[in-house]
Amino acid sequence: MIKIAVLGYGTVGSGVVEVIARNQAELSGSAGEEIKVKYILDSREFPGDPNEDKIVHDFNIIVEDEEIRVVCEAMGGTGDAYLYTRRALEAGKSVCTSNKELVARHGAELMSVARERQCNYMFEASVGGGIPIIRTLAVALSTERIEAVTGILNGTTNYILSQMESEHADYHEALARAQRLGYAERNPEADVKGHDACRKIAILASLVSGRRVDSEKVYTEGIDGIKPEDFAFASKLGMTIKLLAVSRMSENGRLFCMVAPFLLPLTHPLASVCDVFNGVLVRGNMLGDTMFYGRGAGKLPTASAVAADVADCVRNQNRTIMRGWDSETAELYDIKNIESRFFVRCAEEDRNRVREVFCGEDKTEGFSLEGEYGFFTPVMKEEVFGQKRDMLGEAVKGSLRLMSE
Amino acid sequence: MIKIAVLGYGTVGSGVVEVIARNQAELSGSAGEEIKVKYILDSREFPGDPNEDKIVHDFNIIVEDEEIRVVCEAMGGTGDAYLYTRRALEAGKSVCTSNKELVARHGAELMSVARERQCNYMFEASVGGGIPIIRTLAVALSTERIEAVTGILNGTTNYILSQMESEHADYHEALARAQRLGYAERNPEADVKGHDACRKIAILASLVSGRRVDSEKVYTEGIDGIKPEDFAFASKLGMTIKLLAVSRMSENGRLFCMVAPFLLPLTHPLASVCDVFNGVLVRGNMLGDTMFYGRGAGKLPTASAVAADVADCVRNQNRTIMRGWDSETAELYDIKNIESRFFVRCAEEDRNRVREVFCGEDKTEGFSLEGEYGFFTPVMKEEVFGQKRDMLGEAVKGSLRLMSE
Repeated sequence: MIKIAVLGYGTVGSGVVEVIARNQAELSGSAGEEIKVKYILDSREFPGDPNEDKIVHDFNIIVEDEEIRVVCEAMGGTGDAYLYTRRALEAGKSVCTSNKELVARHGAELMSVARERQCNYMFEASVGGGIPIIRTLAVALSTERIEAVTGILNGTTNYILSQMESEHADYHEALARAQRLGYAERNPEADVKGHDACRKIAILASLVSGRRVDSEKVYTEGIDGIKPEDFAFASKLGMTIKLLAVSRMSENGRLFCMVAPFLLPLTHPLASVCDVFNGVLVRGNMLGDTMFYGRGAGKLPTASAVAADVADCVRNQNRTIMRGWDSETAELYDIKNIESRFFVRCAEEDRNRVREVFCGEDKTEGFSLEGEYGFFTPVMKEEVFGQKRDMLGEAVKGSLRLMSE
Repeated sequence: MIKIAVLGYGTVGSGVVEVIARNQAELSGSAGEEIKVKYILDSREFPGDPNEDKIVHDFNIIVEDEEIRVVCEAMGGTGDAYLYTRRALEAGKSVCTSNKELVARHGAELMSVARERQCNYMFEASVGGGIPIIRTLAVALSTERIEAVTGILNGTTNYILSQMESEHADYHEALARAQRLGYAERNPEADVKGHDACRKIAILASLVSGRRVDSEKVYTEGIDGIKPEDFAFASKLGMTIKLLAVSRMSENGRLFCMVAPFLLPLTHPLASVCDVFNGVLVRGNMLGDTMFYGRGAGKLPTASAVAADVADCVRNQNRTIMRGWDSETAELYDIKNIESRFFVRCAEEDRNRVREVFCGEDKTEGFSLEGEYGFFTPVMKEEVFGQKRDMLGEAVKGSLRLMSE
């Protein structure tokens, strides 16, 4: 029998305890041994809780207990979560986590400690919730040259955009609905500004490239500027709008990452990923496109991913299975050199002037809708587009990049 | 350095050799050692081929060479492929294959030989081509109770159905087009009659249930009876038609498997899997729905899956990683007790009579289209539906099951 500890008895932590209890048979079958939760670390008391007797308040009890082979970190943040993770790994105990912030910031270092101590730092639950995307990139597709990873990695923003599309809600109504349903936090900034998706794509890009991608260096736009007019034009175009997190090898072999809302055709594999679901499209040089789709968040899907990591740690005792990435930060390709086509909206009366600035000699026609005019620009660099947009100021009502492939 | 042998230098075999050469860096990184093809077994000569010097005609050379740690079987069939696989495993050499027929028929036995000799029998490429569905079910989702697996597992039939839908082609035109493009064989029976999908769902069901599912006992219908009228009605319903391979736990804990064309709403995750792509939807008790999508066939995607297996075998020498399944055949839940809603087409003039037989008191309305009338039956058992359909004989022009969830 293998004994484990869970750090934090909040949503994810209690989910882990629940999944381990409910799927005991599957878990033991997969791990090859029975798995039992011995301690739950939390500063609070839980009188009357069926696991009351497992609650401890001192991490030393856990780290000093030789019986504990695996620790599930479900505390969040980069303070105590970091210290406890490091100490557990130094003590040769594997750690499984859903803490994307910690993985994005200290993953390279923690995996290197795990390697030294022949244990594992696992983080399947940190990206894509129940979608086994970490394992897929680290193992199943590890013999592919990954050319691009494009993901809908944040369920909150995907729900808001889906509501704006299907219910013709404006951004604030859709956000309020998401908050009522518990899909968005009271302070939704980390989601709607794209920071959550950004941390997740930084983890996937690190895994694929083998070098640490600093999420703070990833160009990130949120969805709070998306208007009902954007969806009205998208609908006419046979397209939809999604917040995409993109990691791609540029032609010169430099990694390029960004998070932004994109227009994409309804035939695109990610177009049908709606509501709180997540999807990740991976392009390999031999495989072509594969896509993985599932619940990106939620107590049980996230906890299930942690439980799968626990089973993997038990199967692989004294053996490090994650390759990890260098702690040296990857230099990213500058966004100003990235080329895209943009869809631009302006007032009907400004159409000639705005079109002229962006399209020059290109005579591709746009179309009018409810007093506005919208059109696609030719392919141009971000830097050039930005200059033109700045020059036009308020005359540009909105713009979106096109994800064509 | 690890030396391997490839059995069969046809499409898949030459693809494996190509992927190993082109993705050498990724493969070595993943496996932890350089991997080199030492022998290629084929009865033919390949004068002028860059790998001419590796061709051998006698399997004994391979099985007796201690240097060979992994064998890729790309011969197909269950004759020599079976004998050579068994002998390689008995000699402690891991075997990786795309041979679904062999896995479906002798997988349990071959995995048990592998376990005895502490090597591996791996078959990622046997189902879903480039989609890593075997690894996902065997490892990533191994701590889930899998309630259902629903797949579009045959690219040929999916291409034909997509053509019938988008180009309004009839079945024979679409088949001829698939043959011209090399997506369908001259004798297309194994694909269009559903046998290929059936073998694949038998493998997935065996993996999920831990007991051998005999593909010959799986109820299987093909797509050769699908008419343009079916697509005309489907389109009016906001639905599409897909050949689905289904494995599900029935309420009494018995496994139920079938392959048949189904009507499914356009909002269903599998509805957007078009052309030669495959998709597999997995329902876990904690995870909910996850879906995996990609190229189901083709030389390089299939070869890439074999190469990923080779890397896994090298990483796991002297360690069996696949759990496999019992060789005792699972008793399947009898299809006659399965309940479904059916969509039925009949001539306009027969509508009252046909509706009466299937719907009785149920007054749900259908609709007319081009001289025919179509409607949904209430939920009923297969056996009951079959009796009613038989009773009506030629009056029923066509029927399809509805995949509602």
